[in-house]
Amino acid sequence: MMLTPNQLNFSGGPGALPESVLQQVQQAIIAVPDVGLSILGISHRSDWFANVMHELEHNVRSLLGLPPNYHVLMLQGGATQQFSMIPMTWLRGSTEAADYLHTGYWSGKSLTEAQREGPMRVLWQGGAIGNATPLSHTPSSIPFSRLPMDDELDFNPRAPYFHYISNETVEGLQFQRVLGRDDVPRVCDMSSDFLSRPCEAERYSLIYAHAQKNLGPAGVTVVVLRDEWLLQAKQDAPGFLDYRTHIAAHSIYNTPPVFAIYVVLLVTRWLLNEVGGLANMHAINTAKAARLYQVIDESDGFYRSRAAVADRSLMNVTFNLPSVEHEQKFLAAAQQAGFSGLAGHRSVGGIRASIYNGLTQEAVDALAGFMKVFRGLN
Amino acid sequence: MMLTPNQLNFSGGPGALPESVLQQVQQAIIAVPDVGLSILGISHRSDWFANVMHELEHNVRSLLGLPPNYHVLMLQGGATQQFSMIPMTWLRGSTEAADYLHTGYWSGKSLTEAQREGPMRVLWQGGAIGNATPLSHTPSSIPFSRLPMDDELDFNPRAPYFHYISNETVEGLQFQRVLGRDDVPRVCDMSSDFLSRPCEAERYSLIYAHAQKNLGPAGVTVVVLRDEWLLQAKQDAPGFLDYRTHIAAHSIYNTPPVFAIYVVLLVTRWLLNEVGGLANMHAINTAKAARLYQVIDESDGFYRSRAAVADRSLMNVTFNLPSVEHEQKFLAAAQQAGFSGLAGHRSVGGIRASIYNGLTQEAVDALAGFMKVFRGLN
Repeated sequence: MMLTPNQLNFSGGPGALPESVLQQVQQAIIAVPDVGLSILGISHRSDWFANVMHELEHNVRSLLGLPPNYHVLMLQGGATQQFSMIPMTWLRGSTEAADYLHTGYWSGKSLTEAQREGPMRVLWQGGAIGNATPLSHTPSSIPFSRLPMDDELDFNPRAPYFHYISNETVEGLQFQRVLGRDDVPRVCDMSSDFLSRPCEAERYSLIYAHAQKNLGPAGVTVVVLRDEWLLQAKQDAPGFLDYRTHIAAHSIYNTPPVFAIYVVLLVTRWLLNEVGGLANMHAINTAKAARLYQVIDESDGFYRSRAAVADRSLMNVTFNLPSVEHEQKFLAAAQQAGFSGLAGHRSVGGIRASIYNGLTQEAVDALAGFMKVFRGLN
Repeated sequence: MMLTPNQLNFSGGPGALPESVLQQVQQAIIAVPDVGLSILGISHRSDWFANVMHELEHNVRSLLGLPPNYHVLMLQGGATQQFSMIPMTWLRGSTEAADYLHTGYWSGKSLTEAQREGPMRVLWQGGAIGNATPLSHTPSSIPFSRLPMDDELDFNPRAPYFHYISNETVEGLQFQRVLGRDDVPRVCDMSSDFLSRPCEAERYSLIYAHAQKNLGPAGVTVVVLRDEWLLQAKQDAPGFLDYRTHIAAHSIYNTPPVFAIYVVLLVTRWLLNEVGGLANMHAINTAKAARLYQVIDESDGFYRSRAAVADRSLMNVTFNLPSVEHEQKFLAAAQQAGFSGLAGHRSVGGIRASIYNGLTQEAVDALAGFMKVFRGLN
């Protein structure tokens, strides 16, 4: 007996994956075609898995249009491990400070780990809509409802690198441009919007993204890394914290999360063959987000977007209702109607509709319809 | 259309999982019962996942008979990360050396990472059957065909800890007793035999085991840690490398590998409810191994066991044939007959039949039958 899903998944992550991918995964649990073994019991040293890694790297290169001087790695430990590995590798012992942006909950986490490893400077913290917030060290009181404009950022041309997060999932803020200077290594946490749109990857020295938003299940993290930047890397870390070890071992320095990597492969195949590439994916994601923002904007203030219009995320649509009571009623009614995972992040409350690659236009349309009906009744 | 597995999986790891577990996993890929969402898209902050973690911890405690002063953690990074985290936490800054055993390929890896973090001493290295091997630093030339006896080990009562590996998967050597002094913190890598037999967990300060042999898919590592030992822990590591962070966060300091953890839960349920506990599992594993060793021992030297009889592993049965040509012919014929993963580790060659918890007696009997037939024909 097979159950079918009876909930549409708007969770902030882990998030929904494409149905055609899930069907292939389901088959692979018992036996991977052409192998005859469960995906959960195939050796990472097998020829089959070598082909998985090879095709996956090829697909990521193809989707991003990546030049040959980039490495594509599949690591463990999530974005959290990258928060540390990056400053361990390029900040320890530096006299110049790295530049960081603090644009929301998750970039806040990246600051703490960088500070532990070397000198760093927070270029921007905040801010409220309409004005920048003075830098402070009491993050809990900082509003994050808009992103900085270029003329608000004073980049240091001698910084060892500049780090930012392209999409803040908690606040629903997303940069719609590449930030920073082309002569300073640019590092970006794209955990929540990687492969959701074209990203000009060749302008970054390092991009990282955990899988559990747009790419696959939790447990694997993609790193795209420019070879030349490794010349500046420190060499004193244990192997599992050293990018060069993972490059030399083609991401199997130690046993990798075989299953999670296989699912990411299937998602990249889906992006290439069913969606038709990142420009198409971007168009689909834009249409999905527009549908929800339209309902919000046409609600006469019943639904209030948390993010400044110019910085609205295509991945996480965050909004409030007139009161906390309205929001609780909304969440309960939505759950009842088959919409799952709509509660805002525990640090900010409110509502968050996460509409990653795997969530369909039909699911978004259904939520938009529900929102209109709910508004009419309340 | 559902494929069925057409290969019996004797891989060194990731290894075979129980069929009843795979069937439940297959259903969960589309929708977890009582949740209505794919296991790949369920939030680690959901009530459902909190229950998964709670039950899993309870099951591990129950299987091991663990006292309440132990923590049970689910981490990323495999045994490799533990090779570093342990000396980072208890060896950095120490003036006394930790005691390590070098009994095979994998314990060799643990030495390298310990040496990086603080003073350590290799108590034993080798050895050939019949005599101990002098300590040397040319591991590739060291034979590993037996384990040390108690009177060959001179433990330091002031060591910050003693570290060993209970089962060497490459060589097929397994300790059949608890090693070390009760007054020195005892640390054991049980990656390849955890939950395959009772282990007197309360005599260890720390036990760790990656999942991909007996517990589940690659991507999660179980750590069992005595609370009191944390009082001696250093406090200067980033959060993801600090056991206390993971304890305080109940293993969701950052997004955990939700899927892999769910599979481990199903395996612990299987151990408790279908197998009936670790004593029963041990009896089954003993019978499985005995079947293969019997064929080897009754082959008039055609099959030659690599391990000393007293130290033979119940998990990895390693042997050679009269020549490399015989071995190649054996592997090809076995693959043809539906036996997968029998090649020995690339560092030693030969044949290795890995017979973890999930592999059935029937599969082992089939291999034993094949071995007899092959011998008769060659």
